[in-house]
Amino acid sequence: MATSLLPWSDKALALLCRMNNFHLPGSSLVRCRRFVIEGQQVGWVPPVVASKLTRFPEVFTSSGSGEAGAVALCPALDSYRKRSEAVNTVLQQLREEDTFSCLRGWRDEKYEVMPRFCDQSLMCMERAATSLFGVKRYGVHVNGYRQEEDGTVTMWLSRRSRTKQTYPGTLDNLVAGGLAAGTSLQETLIKECEEEACIPACIAETACPVGTVSYTYEDEDGVFPESQFVFDLKLPLEFRPQIGDGEVQDFYLWPLDQVKEVLVSEDFKPNSAMVVLDFLIRHSYVHPDAEPYYQEFVTGLHKSL
Amino acid sequence: MATSLLPWSDKALALLCRMNNFHLPGSSLVRCRRFVIEGQQVGWVPPVVASKLTRFPEVFTSSGSGEAGAVALCPALDSYRKRSEAVNTVLQQLREEDTFSCLRGWRDEKYEVMPRFCDQSLMCMERAATSLFGVKRYGVHVNGYRQEEDGTVTMWLSRRSRTKQTYPGTLDNLVAGGLAAGTSLQETLIKECEEEACIPACIAETACPVGTVSYTYEDEDGVFPESQFVFDLKLPLEFRPQIGDGEVQDFYLWPLDQVKEVLVSEDFKPNSAMVVLDFLIRHSYVHPDAEPYYQEFVTGLHKSL
Repeated sequence: MATSLLPWSDKALALLCRMNNFHLPGSSLVRCRRFVIEGQQVGWVPPVVASKLTRFPEVFTSSGSGEAGAVALCPALDSYRKRSEAVNTVLQQLREEDTFSCLRGWRDEKYEVMPRFCDQSLMCMERAATSLFGVKRYGVHVNGYRQEEDGTVTMWLSRRSRTKQTYPGTLDNLVAGGLAAGTSLQETLIKECEEEACIPACIAETACPVGTVSYTYEDEDGVFPESQFVFDLKLPLEFRPQIGDGEVQDFYLWPLDQVKEVLVSEDFKPNSAMVVLDFLIRHSYVHPDAEPYYQEFVTGLHKSL
Repeated sequence: MATSLLPWSDKALALLCRMNNFHLPGSSLVRCRRFVIEGQQVGWVPPVVASKLTRFPEVFTSSGSGEAGAVALCPALDSYRKRSEAVNTVLQQLREEDTFSCLRGWRDEKYEVMPRFCDQSLMCMERAATSLFGVKRYGVHVNGYRQEEDGTVTMWLSRRSRTKQTYPGTLDNLVAGGLAAGTSLQETLIKECEEEACIPACIAETACPVGTVSYTYEDEDGVFPESQFVFDLKLPLEFRPQIGDGEVQDFYLWPLDQVKEVLVSEDFKPNSAMVVLDFLIRHSYVHPDAEPYYQEFVTGLHKSL
């Protein structure tokens, strides 16, 4: 591919642009409707989705068009439970009718729907459906690293199983997982560390929260506003991750030079590559006098809608 | 003041909103014209400034209005030197006529004018005038900290001299300075460390680049898009900063609890407070399960136009 000939900096900038393509001129943003519950915006509904929802007037009401327009839940759905159930029924029907291909990836895993992370959840929604409503998703990503005896830093990476629904076979952070309804970040962190890499809780608990990586992209499945809560986990020299629940096929311990090179390749899950880029910046592995897009990298890793 | 009764989280969020008020609905953004050199946008010109520039048609051309409009430099100004000199002549005249109060703070210090930090500079401009054109300013901020023998982290802060032009007498990072035309970040870092706190180069060089803090605010002096390159500098236990060029009146070594409390007070220079907040997040002193606005903090510290 032509892009493989680009300098590293351009490839990294291209990654951030791609993962923030909903912000770019020409995106569907101006044609999306706000998704509104109880008067508060909780997402963006692409036009193709909005038109399919008009069949369900007992659940969704629609007003205006484009950015000025809204798809709202009917006022009769006045509780968390009622909203979650009514939307779920619609989604199950659309899934059976095979209206949206993303619903083929139904997971029976619920995500909370909130105006902001700090707000009370207004409903929960099947994970595979959130992109149809541009509902923000949250997750936990763990940079697993070691400080070698000579002081150099190496990083543990995982390779996703070939049977994963999304990004099969690509490189990933040591541990990562979505934030399911009703769980805290700390619980998610400890659970995913145990399940994906057999990291015992006594080690996982030493992970340090160091910020978030936020971005919004769109593709044929809809709109993906996401924020990943990032943790750095310094692993003991004698520790080796083990394959747990089968979501990972292999682990690698690589020097940061190699990690830096591979994060801009097609071989790396893109949002996890962003988490690694953030690590390299925070750990002074990228220097602002030497990296022309340094400032663009930092803002591109932290974009909110 | 009523705000002093708010919880810490709300005060910190209010700080970030204030420092990004150009992004808020109701800001002058929709009435500003793009400032354009060689076809590339390098700033935002508030309406009151644009109207004063029409007197100088040999330097500035104007087209359209509001966000769709532009103030451009005349094509005859076809070099860095010509542009810098022509604009400087206009600014000197406006200064003599006392047209804009910000020009009373003329510093004889030039900043580069660039579409992006990585681009070649198109001209340089007096520091005190950049807000009239919404030209982005860059600086270096240093979090000076210590790791005490018991492992706890304390932070060195400075108190600005009462005679400083901007934010006299407020708390500030240990060292901070604007990026003058023709200097690198590393040079600025070492020079400011020496001048402001008598930190020798052999210590200053150990400062670690850890990202940027970016924001855009507006006030009666114009538009301030700024990016600060942030460095963490771990200082030896035996080191004490000394007053250098007189821009600082005092230094304090405080526990992070006290630093966290004071950063949301009126006593702290606002952009430096943002740099400290970024430090507290990166060093896991703020935990995402305990801080409701964690994600808003991280994105609010890294906003680009």
